Amino acid sequence: MNQPIYDTIALIGIGLIGSSISHAARRAGLCRRLVGHAKSEATRATALRLGLVEAACPTAAEAVKNADLVILCVPVGACVRIAEEIRDHLKPGATVTDVGSVKGTIVRDVGPLLPPNVHFVPGHPIAGTEHSGPESGFAELYDNRWCILTPPEDTDPAATERLRTFWQGLGSNVEIMDADHHDMVLAITSHVPHLIAFNIVNTAAHLERVTDSEVIKFSAGGFRDFTRIAASDPTMWRDVFLNNREAVLEMLGRFTEDLIHLQRSIRYGDGETLFELFSKARQIRRGVIQAGQDAGSAAAFYRSRDAVGAKPGNAPAGDKPKP
Amino acid sequence: MNQPIYDTIALIGIGLIGSSISHAARRAGLCRRLVGHAKSEATRATALRLGLVEAACPTAAEAVKNADLVILCVPVGACVRIAEEIRDHLKPGATVTDVGSVKGTIVRDVGPLLPPNVHFVPGHPIAGTEHSGPESGFAELYDNRWCILTPPEDTDPAATERLRTFWQGLGSNVEIMDADHHDMVLAITSHVPHLIAFNIVNTAAHLERVTDSEVIKFSAGGFRDFTRIAASDPTMWRDVFLNNREAVLEMLGRFTEDLIHLQRSIRYGDGETLFELFSKARQIRRGVIQAGQDAGSAAAFYRSRDAVGAKPGNAPAGDKPKP
Repeated sequence: MNQPIYDTIALIGIGLIGSSISHAARRAGLCRRLVGHAKSEATRATALRLGLVEAACPTAAEAVKNADLVILCVPVGACVRIAEEIRDHLKPGATVTDVGSVKGTIVRDVGPLLPPNVHFVPGHPIAGTEHSGPESGFAELYDNRWCILTPPEDTDPAATERLRTFWQGLGSNVEIMDADHHDMVLAITSHVPHLIAFNIVNTAAHLERVTDSEVIKFSAGGFRDFTRIAASDPTMWRDVFLNNREAVLEMLGRFTEDLIHLQRSIRYGDGETLFELFSKARQIRRGVIQAGQDAGSAAAFYRSRDAVGAKPGNAPAGDKPKP
Repeated sequence: MNQPIYDTIALIGIGLIGSSISHAARRAGLCRRLVGHAKSEATRATALRLGLVEAACPTAAEAVKNADLVILCVPVGACVRIAEEIRDHLKPGATVTDVGSVKGTIVRDVGPLLPPNVHFVPGHPIAGTEHSGPESGFAELYDNRWCILTPPEDTDPAATERLRTFWQGLGSNVEIMDADHHDMVLAITSHVPHLIAFNIVNTAAHLERVTDSEVIKFSAGGFRDFTRIAASDPTMWRDVFLNNREAVLEMLGRFTEDLIHLQRSIRYGDGETLFELFSKARQIRRGVIQAGQDAGSAAAFYRSRDAVGAKPGNAPAGDKPKP
């Protein structure tokens, strides 16, 4: 058991992200006490039953009262309302953070609502699954994933360092950057990919000449992977797009421009351009594997193969053991 | 050991698909003898070393001489050349098939080249990984995946049934359909998804304000899954797009139209439309899982989690075991 980094932690929202923080914090002994708030009574009951929190409060105000670290684990669009609710109940010297996928609007809209005697260090763990709810969390979710912190300029560096140590204790690597840059990076690495996945799933659903059951039956050709991405929480993603509008629109513009270029190459039978662009894309993939953001051990890959299925372009990564 | 379905099988091309057919055919005892052809001497040596074939011939003409089943396991664009090479060397009564991702041009361009005393039954196993080459194959690749056969109208039904039994022996489910319908279904379930994946990876690579290393580092937010799809063989995919042009262009048109609609909803802050479209996409995902085209057993999922990583929108499917 490590020395606890915070005495009491309040989780505002106990879904996939909040419950995984609980599992991982307990695994590493990062706090003495976890309290939580969830709007729904059923979620509070589940959180208590699973031992995710010692106390489950019906209001956020009550949950934060004695907390040294308050983590807003709710969709981005709910953060302002929560900040207004808790601002007068925060413990002096506490740190408030969040886990939202957009950081610019959080810094701009939530920061000014908080009293001057607390530290505000927005954060974003680049981790998750397409599952939701308090039962979907697990301790390993953040292992070897990145967590980005975007402290406003006037933040006490000691508070940022303490939160960095906490996320490292949860298993993550931590990077600190400007909120607007975060939003630009995430627009291309996460937000636009999700939008595209949502979009193609809906395009497929509208075809008259191809039935839904055919789309599903033959989904192993690539479509399946898009449906997995498109299964993510609709509320969370709605808020992401509403809050990171400018960066997403810029990236979408570039994406469409590039797609039209590819489409034109197909129309005019320009195989050379297609080959060249496809080969370039393959290089980037190598970078992802080399950076350890996808490859597992060969043995783990081998075991997992039947579980996740193998299909064009989307087998789990990693070198396969040779027969 | 089952009763062999074909005495001798010739694999023309010994990459991922061909080598996996060898592993799966041997697993089930579907033939007495496997011979192969690969252009590269290194591939032939590897195929012999791994025991994928009993004989590795430097020409396709030689490989097909005594074969009861000839399987063209080469990119779609190479099939015409191979057909011209083997046509005068085929055993009377043999069946010729292929594994290409496009079927209309194969039926149209390859069929007429073959002599009337052989059976021509084009096929397409909806299975693969992003890895290439004779060492990347494995016996389970086709298990519980679909294989589509598209026999031209005048095909002997007995030849089609025999090939169906063969693919079932490899582990697949088999569906028979018209070549043009196949191309339409695959355009939306496989070809356009791959094109989009290739495209966004290249869009990301061109950004000046976001570095390549950032794109790679924070790829677990969704982008990673696109890089995996975009790592597929460039030659194979170039041929797919050149040969399935009409269906791909139609699907791309619909995709872009739908994407512009989403983009407009983001620009004007129409959260209701976004939420509704994202929720619909989630439904389709349920269908894929229910159809057994993604979910693995809970135990296998649990083991595989560290191997493939967990992240927003793309954890391996299947219910997680509760703690």
